[in-house]
Amino acid sequence: MTYYAEPIIRLIREFSRLPGVGEKTASRFAFYVLNANREYAQNLAKSLVDVKEKIMLCSSCHSLSDKNPCAICSDNFRRDDVICVVEDVKDMVAIEKMGGFKGKYHILHGALSPLKGIGPDDIKLNGLLDRAWQGVIKEIILATNSDIDGEATALYITRLLKPTGIRITRIATGIPVGSDLEYIDGATLVRAMEGRREM
Amino acid sequence: MTYYAEPIIRLIREFSRLPGVGEKTASRFAFYVLNANREYAQNLAKSLVDVKEKIMLCSSCHSLSDKNPCAICSDNFRRDDVICVVEDVKDMVAIEKMGGFKGKYHILHGALSPLKGIGPDDIKLNGLLDRAWQGVIKEIILATNSDIDGEATALYITRLLKPTGIRITRIATGIPVGSDLEYIDGATLVRAMEGRREM
Repeated sequence: MTYYAEPIIRLIREFSRLPGVGEKTASRFAFYVLNANREYAQNLAKSLVDVKEKIMLCSSCHSLSDKNPCAICSDNFRRDDVICVVEDVKDMVAIEKMGGFKGKYHILHGALSPLKGIGPDDIKLNGLLDRAWQGVIKEIILATNSDIDGEATALYITRLLKPTGIRITRIATGIPVGSDLEYIDGATLVRAMEGRREM
Repeated sequence: MTYYAEPIIRLIREFSRLPGVGEKTASRFAFYVLNANREYAQNLAKSLVDVKEKIMLCSSCHSLSDKNPCAICSDNFRRDDVICVVEDVKDMVAIEKMGGFKGKYHILHGALSPLKGIGPDDIKLNGLLDRAWQGVIKEIILATNSDIDGEATALYITRLLKPTGIRITRIATGIPVGSDLEYIDGATLVRAMEGRREM
């Protein structure tokens, strides 16, 4: 890398801090920028600065937005009485893409993880409790991931919200649609059997 | 993607123009930037603008450099009489990393390719001819790639430079060091046999 000119080295170094990007890929990006027109570099540079300047956390649901409250929280056509709790913004986007959900969200920005030393104070929980006590919410859907941390977080929130008397639900675990039983892991099969329904 | 706030969408769009980066990876990059400190976004933005403003082509060898002539061309400890011709800057860097070569370079920024419509006017050839006629150069090493385009380019340059009387050499093709004959493709084996030497 030291054989490149200083500004190229710096750009490669900055690119290689991106997740999953090593020195080789970072050089490829740098040379793409070098060969692209000046406008592209300027646009990317501007977008980078913009995103840090304009994006903030919605004070209600903690989503990332350029407005506060965010577009979803201030959407009067959405139901105020159903809140879907997710670990991060990408999970919220996955549910939005799905379409059917017309309630609002709460984004935790993480999950409880004793192993990683992430406790209740490290994720955005308190706002949820405040909202729950306001008396508007009738159901809270826990849509944290179905891994250990996500399950632990769902359990913790359930206990935390029990006193409010609000209906608390958990999205179903089971075999994904279109999958072949042969290739499903045991843990998922056990959950799918436990969660069986009458036909 | 439309579920994100506008500045995030713009950043994802710019990132996804990088080579090999789709929308998923671009979102990952964007969220990394969102979670990173403000300094990182600013440094990457500055590097992007810098690289377009400060990097130019060396007027002698056509390398990308922040000086003109570049560090290698203006290095008095390097030999002026041996020129290594490569397709692009990354190839030059590969040879520099190897270490042994103490001559100078000429970067073509491409290879002739009738199929892709790249002719002699589309790559940086003329500078090389000028340098060759100046009478200083004693050997020109053609280190273009060993694919069809690279070979065609080497052949073309050889014919072009014949009248100068300069010694023109081509880097060897053969089996790579440490490789097992069993896994070498036929074309390489043929070349390796043709290029055999006395022990």
